[in-house]
Amino acid sequence: MGGFFGITSTRECLADVFFGTDYHSHLGTRRAGLAAYDPAIGLQRKIHNIENAPFRTKFERVFQEMRGTSAIGCISDTDPQPLLVRSRLGNYAVCTIGVINNSEKLIADCLDREGGYFDAMTGGRINSTQLFSALMSQKTDFVEGIRYAQEQIEGTASVLILKNDGSLIAARDRLGRLPICIGRSEDGYAVSFESFAYQKLGYEDERELGPGEIVQITPDGIVQLMPPGTEKRICAFLWSYYGYPTSTYEGVNVEAMRYRNGESLAEQDEQNGFSEPIDYVGGVPDSGTPHAIGYANRSGRRYARAFVKYTPTWSRSFMPQDQWERDRIAKMKQIPVHDLIQGKDLLFVDDSIVRGTQLRETVEFLYENGAKSVHMRSACPPILFACKYLNFSRSSSDVDLIARRVILELEGEAGLEHLEEYSDGSTERGRNLRRAIAEKLHFASLEFQSLEGVVKAIGLPPCELCTYCWNGKE
Amino acid sequence: MGGFFGITSTRECLADVFFGTDYHSHLGTRRAGLAAYDPAIGLQRKIHNIENAPFRTKFERVFQEMRGTSAIGCISDTDPQPLLVRSRLGNYAVCTIGVINNSEKLIADCLDREGGYFDAMTGGRINSTQLFSALMSQKTDFVEGIRYAQEQIEGTASVLILKNDGSLIAARDRLGRLPICIGRSEDGYAVSFESFAYQKLGYEDERELGPGEIVQITPDGIVQLMPPGTEKRICAFLWSYYGYPTSTYEGVNVEAMRYRNGESLAEQDEQNGFSEPIDYVGGVPDSGTPHAIGYANRSGRRYARAFVKYTPTWSRSFMPQDQWERDRIAKMKQIPVHDLIQGKDLLFVDDSIVRGTQLRETVEFLYENGAKSVHMRSACPPILFACKYLNFSRSSSDVDLIARRVILELEGEAGLEHLEEYSDGSTERGRNLRRAIAEKLHFASLEFQSLEGVVKAIGLPPCELCTYCWNGKE
Amino acid sequence: MGGFFGITSTRECLADVFFGTDYHSHLGTRRAGLAAYDPAIGLQRKIHNIENAPFRTKFERVFQEMRGTSAIGCISDTDPQPLLVRSRLGNYAVCTIGVINNSEKLIADCLDREGGYFDAMTGGRINSTQLFSALMSQKTDFVEGIRYAQEQIEGTASVLILKNDGSLIAARDRLGRLPICIGRSEDGYAVSFESFAYQKLGYEDERELGPGEIVQITPDGIVQLMPPGTEKRICAFLWSYYGYPTSTYEGVNVEAMRYRNGESLAEQDEQNGFSEPIDYVGGVPDSGTPHAIGYANRSGRRYARAFVKYTPTWSRSFMPQDQWERDRIAKMKQIPVHDLIQGKDLLFVDDSIVRGTQLRETVEFLYENGAKSVHMRSACPPILFACKYLNFSRSSSDVDLIARRVILELEGEAGLEHLEEYSDGSTERGRNLRRAIAEKLHFASLEFQSLEGVVKAIGLPPCELCTYCWNGKE
Amino acid sequence: MGGFFGITSTRECLADVFFGTDYHSHLGTRRAGLAAYDPAIGLQRKIHNIENAPFRTKFERVFQEMRGTSAIGCISDTDPQPLLVRSRLGNYAVCTIGVINNSEKLIADCLDREGGYFDAMTGGRINSTQLFSALMSQKTDFVEGIRYAQEQIEGTASVLILKNDGSLIAARDRLGRLPICIGRSEDGYAVSFESFAYQKLGYEDERELGPGEIVQITPDGIVQLMPPGTEKRICAFLWSYYGYPTSTYEGVNVEAMRYRNGESLAEQDEQNGFSEPIDYVGGVPDSGTPHAIGYANRSGRRYARAFVKYTPTWSRSFMPQDQWERDRIAKMKQIPVHDLIQGKDLLFVDDSIVRGTQLRETVEFLYENGAKSVHMRSACPPILFACKYLNFSRSSSDVDLIARRVILELEGEAGLEHLEEYSDGSTERGRNLRRAIAEKLHFASLEFQSLEGVVKAIGLPPCELCTYCWNGKE
Repeated sequence: MGGFFGITSTRECLADVFFGTDYHSHLGTRRAGLAAYDPAIGLQRKIHNIENAPFRTKFERVFQEMRGTSAIGCISDTDPQPLLVRSRLGNYAVCTIGVINNSEKLIADCLDREGGYFDAMTGGRINSTQLFSALMSQKTDFVEGIRYAQEQIEGTASVLILKNDGSLIAARDRLGRLPICIGRSEDGYAVSFESFAYQKLGYEDERELGPGEIVQITPDGIVQLMPPGTEKRICAFLWSYYGYPTSTYEGVNVEAMRYRNGESLAEQDEQNGFSEPIDYVGGVPDSGTPHAIGYANRSGRRYARAFVKYTPTWSRSFMPQDQWERDRIAKMKQIPVHDLIQGKDLLFVDDSIVRGTQLRETVEFLYENGAKSVHMRSACPPILFACKYLNFSRSSSDVDLIARRVILELEGEAGLEHLEEYSDGSTERGRNLRRAIAEKLHFASLEFQSLEGVVKAIGLPPCELCTYCWNGKE
Repeated sequence: MGGFFGITSTRECLADVFFGTDYHSHLGTRRAGLAAYDPAIGLQRKIHNIENAPFRTKFERVFQEMRGTSAIGCISDTDPQPLLVRSRLGNYAVCTIGVINNSEKLIADCLDREGGYFDAMTGGRINSTQLFSALMSQKTDFVEGIRYAQEQIEGTASVLILKNDGSLIAARDRLGRLPICIGRSEDGYAVSFESFAYQKLGYEDERELGPGEIVQITPDGIVQLMPPGTEKRICAFLWSYYGYPTSTYEGVNVEAMRYRNGESLAEQDEQNGFSEPIDYVGGVPDSGTPHAIGYANRSGRRYARAFVKYTPTWSRSFMPQDQWERDRIAKMKQIPVHDLIQGKDLLFVDDSIVRGTQLRETVEFLYENGAKSVHMRSACPPILFACKYLNFSRSSSDVDLIARRVILELEGEAGLEHLEEYSDGSTERGRNLRRAIAEKLHFASLEFQSLEGVVKAIGLPPCELCTYCWNGKE
Repeated sequence: MGGFFGITSTRECLADVFFGTDYHSHLGTRRAGLAAYDPAIGLQRKIHNIENAPFRTKFERVFQEMRGTSAIGCISDTDPQPLLVRSRLGNYAVCTIGVINNSEKLIADCLDREGGYFDAMTGGRINSTQLFSALMSQKTDFVEGIRYAQEQIEGTASVLILKNDGSLIAARDRLGRLPICIGRSEDGYAVSFESFAYQKLGYEDERELGPGEIVQITPDGIVQLMPPGTEKRICAFLWSYYGYPTSTYEGVNVEAMRYRNGESLAEQDEQNGFSEPIDYVGGVPDSGTPHAIGYANRSGRRYARAFVKYTPTWSRSFMPQDQWERDRIAKMKQIPVHDLIQGKDLLFVDDSIVRGTQLRETVEFLYENGAKSVHMRSACPPILFACKYLNFSRSSSDVDLIARRVILELEGEAGLEHLEEYSDGSTERGRNLRRAIAEKLHFASLEFQSLEGVVKAIGLPPCELCTYCWNGKE
Repeated sequence: MGGFFGITSTRECLADVFFGTDYHSHLGTRRAGLAAYDPAIGLQRKIHNIENAPFRTKFERVFQEMRGTSAIGCISDTDPQPLLVRSRLGNYAVCTIGVINNSEKLIADCLDREGGYFDAMTGGRINSTQLFSALMSQKTDFVEGIRYAQEQIEGTASVLILKNDGSLIAARDRLGRLPICIGRSEDGYAVSFESFAYQKLGYEDERELGPGEIVQITPDGIVQLMPPGTEKRICAFLWSYYGYPTSTYEGVNVEAMRYRNGESLAEQDEQNGFSEPIDYVGGVPDSGTPHAIGYANRSGRRYARAFVKYTPTWSRSFMPQDQWERDRIAKMKQIPVHDLIQGKDLLFVDDSIVRGTQLRETVEFLYENGAKSVHMRSACPPILFACKYLNFSRSSSDVDLIARRVILELEGEAGLEHLEEYSDGSTERGRNLRRAIAEKLHFASLEFQSLEGVVKAIGLPPCELCTYCWNGKE
């Protein structure tokens, strides 16, 4: 994933963009960058590796190195960004978020062309944002270029551009799978993945871009370069899994949606007559927690934090050279609260169950710490299709998905024709699937949120949501 | 505050001490250090400033620089540690936690003596651990030296020493105000402020040291150099405020204690007939949260996280040079969830109310975000005496305490003779105090946990707890 | 300027390339980079800013980050290098040395083309090596691409490429203005600007590339992809000014050439009957020194070092923020030896006189330190044409050249028609020029080496040397 | 060795002390430090390891961290300095140069005392300056303390102290083995090992301290706290070996002394009828060079630089981990100029011959590069006694000295009774020694400067010079 943030203002704005970008740190852990435009200096840029130290540590000296009345920043889980580019579109800084699934084909196309070449990274890899820029450069203006690039790529790409005159161009991906919000202050405008980022900086909500919409922004105002499309497919997982609790997309707050979602999970259990003794309801941190709070609030069962992630310094991966097994380190973060586990019947809510590997380890860890029983609830339906738009689901292909694997075990390829039935917990196939996964992962019981449940908790029209992972609907 | 961690083992243990020390990162933000003993190299030491980057970032190269079969580490909110010392006690590494209130007098005494001198820090300040070492050096063996130093200082000092033969000496402060736990594995022993630190590294609880107890530890076993004293005064705030959720001291887990404490607060409200409409119960992060969970669980009211601390990178203080007002940055961390605040009646539980400044700001922030009413509950009694043993309460003197200030406003110096009455919410003075503070800080209502309530939630005999802040009992 | 070094070997060679590149540190002060090829990893690359710390300090951790059986390195006074490139020529690492005078036009040409774009640097500048790569990519193989790029650019470009199979391609600039030497060991081959770099690493001279020659090198041997051209114009300043004393180009050692050159300067003075009293002969450090040694040896006058550059740490520019005037710092490096200046008649030899600014300051500094008289000798003829092939002369245009400026002062534009005469010290115009410059710069006397003298000291056929700066011959 | 520099001024002086300290970089390669006094902040201090990067690189951010109207700095080949100390003498910063040979005994004495202890370094080592401070603290004022410490130590100690009121105390070692110079400007005073350091900063020579003299300096003037002693023993090697060319001690410039010394060596050869064919005279860099220039100037033989130290980045030691043999790296620095060696008869002058190991390697390196013959001249007499005052001679004991070893080989212990004879090249024993060393180290011939020769070249009364290394006279 990743996220971007930018400001165009009548006053120096680098400190604001510094903090606004930092507020996207939950969206990526590998690279971060800032670009600024100052009339006297032109475009400037700084990128740092943030794998071993957080954004703020790495960029603390940026105020000696750069300045600007317009600036953009980016937190990235993949390639270094923003790039400075010089093309027939002019000089500009650019960052993109999303995923390009057909990059090798697109690169090959570019290289076939006379003069085609790329600056490469270790191993010959091509920076995705560079590829996007190369595609844009096929056309002679930004709007055409962005549209062309978005059409060429299979996947999703939202773009934020800082031009060599200090203006910003923001373009939301064609089907609006990811959000772009715009805030307004007395001095200018902010563009952001997360709206709370600019709110904390004193900007008020102006509006969200529509799917495929392209705008150019200066301190004087917003000019629409391309109106939004009529179709929208915003990713439902923004709410159920990777959005930040304080985030609000399409007017729907993440934390509040999760409470509603957990409440409806509890209602479903009630309707199903679930009556096992439960000492504590808990969430698998971090995203499972608010779903669990909703469940506990609605069910009247006690909420508790039976294990805790050690946060003060564990936000980064680290490996003391050759001295420790990698496995052991992965487990260092979760710390049990024995009194809340030992001899207890526990019900946990997780945001989703993809491959099941991590969840199985977590459940074993609970049993090792003396849990009497561990019931599991998934805050979304079974994941039956690997995401091809955002790659968010940490699963490279359908075959990794535990729901699919269990279905194949239950009745072979034939089962794949009954996916809808399997998804539905009220059918026999649905019950079989839940039972088989529960057995495999050592859950005392397993239930999934229904597709209707999660859509209702979000509250948007179903046609505006991408629910491909669950029902395969493109 | 601060915390230390050490291991003496038959095998290389630096990676374990690295992780064990890192698990104390919640206890300090200024300096961290590691010292190791290797038979071939002797004692080695490394200290880093951790104000701008976390422990793990700063120490990631330590494995190229040091090694050892015994090692100690320290996270410190004050001076650089561990120190390497050479005295007539031999060569050793040492770290201390606690506070020395009479350091200026002790330094003057040392300097009066022939040959007395100290390595100083900026501004001539003397490192507390160096002062402790200088005091120890007045005697000819470690036990005498530690006892002498502990007697001389006003305050509290727990000590961890790594000797030049790889053995550890651990000495708990005289009245056991702070914990020292010992863990055991096949290869050796671990000494730790936090027991979960060694548990995660595969060590099992061996035992906690008693107050004033001194032990020498080698991989072969533990030798008691000084038996524990009969009096104990462990700090009650370890549970209610600064302990980590997963910590367990004297057999009592922090998270579980807070649930019990929050439950009893709820019972108290029920008994008092508190019946205001409350949409959500929440905790003032981070320590208030589990008290609030307990309150919500017991009261049947809905728990919610109405605002969130942005954690991915905000664990450190940072100030872009001259570009931002310090005030503004302080407020960047708390992010509201508007849907859970706007138009809502909220009840918040905080761990304690010291000066009230921060809490007042938090409540104003909630009202600015549209809260209809904000009720406040303190998870402990009114703080009427500034801590003189650990300085934990972030209050340098009695006059900063809001409860005292309000009492003085209510009836002048005379009021100080009725502190016990003021502490008790069932008396008229007690009710007046609550009402006056609530008015001052804009709370819709205010209640404090009673002394009996908090002691009962901890579950230890009252005589073993230091409750000086609440009742002035030494 | 800048320099490159590369090895292709049957064994791990990164340490060798590290040292070999470091031996080019005298050729650049801004950026340095290493790229390596390892069959398992592919191409890797690392670039550092070396303005504040030397190459070895900045690259000391490269052995943890990269490895390879082939590698190239570059010291650069301009843009970051080597670049990793992916184009229809394949994946490769590339560095170039030389200068591109028509870059803006070439960039514009590239951008006119469909899809043309560049990764830019601060202010929109384009990396020269990237531009070279973009030009190469117009063609479908390396030889055609290199030839095409070299033809397109006005200036000079030598190239070193590390291909994705570990082989090297080295291409000397078309007229051989800069050298490329190849060394051979048991394990493979080295390619270098400086031959002493590989000699110190145990490689023996294999041969120098001819002008425009292109070769592909593997550990198995050298394959000529393009034979050398018949015309050669190697820069004469390699010997008289910027070559390292230990360097040997075209079989001619720099230090030895300078001795011969200084000797012939002394002979010229003798023939001219120069008989002023001279206490000491000295060189303007660093390049003037060996010319002065030759002069002293031949003239029988005493050689002395009347001022010294403080070298231990002054190899880098540095500016304490706002606290010191830039001018003052520039003068910190030269330290006088008063005893060798006070009351003395001094004769100094400098490598060349370009704008005269620095030399004037040096001479004033000598007078301030009590020199009785300062005679000056230039180790080369008057510089009358700004270099357009390498930009080495630190002079952006003809109008900066002091010789031209003085000629214009002496007789206006008309004087430019008598440049040859002015260059010759035996003509009246020649004598006038020397007298006028000496007056302007406060020299007691001034003489220039003759064109014949410097060519003879080098010892190559005049037609193989570029002497454009002196006689305008292309 | 090492050197210090300080200023006390009416204006901010940190930048001046930064540059003044940097001018002592030739005296040490391990640690450097700065301390400053500002009335508002008090004493501040910063120390860096300079083994991998030069002083200026490491301290470039010091202007953000410190400021002061008085400051001191230190370049050290041994322990971190300056130290901040708090003792009954008050708060102060201190650095020392010299050597303490009986430190273990002095440490033991301190530790025997009640309360005696030291902050230790890795392996339990004690910082020499800390030891000096502990000794000073035995007394109740600085003068007594410095005198007492200087008396207790066997060796040499010069001291520079920055007091907590901004005044400086400078104390030269008792016999004035090392220099301390004082400079004066309009704003204050500078104290320095090297006088050129403050001259370049606009200070004029005020005076040198006499042996054992102690002064206190404020911007208002110099107060003599202790007059100089009558005996002086300044180290003769300051001129012949480790002084910087631009340095002047006791009014005698280093470079000029070396020319005189080389000239007298040439005269001696002439008197001895030395008539071998010599193509070039050269110096073993760096200190041998000016001796060789003097020799060449006087003898009329040609001077040349037959090999060169590669300086741009080789001022520091460096070792790529496990990849290269340490031996090989040591040899990377010297680069031959083949044309000046191949087939040539060479005469080299070195500053001195201690163990002979390095010189033997250098000569072999010359023969490997084709030298026909290598004659050697030592710029000082045979070293027969290991230095016990400054340890400068890089020889821990008498038995390492090649002259002694050869004498023992020639006639056993008995030879040690004829050291004076051996030192004298005109005796048979003297000739035997030269012949035997020449054979051992593969010199074509070997001569030493005579004691009278070197003393005369310095020009001070023999009784003021320490010549212990050569004649054993204390």
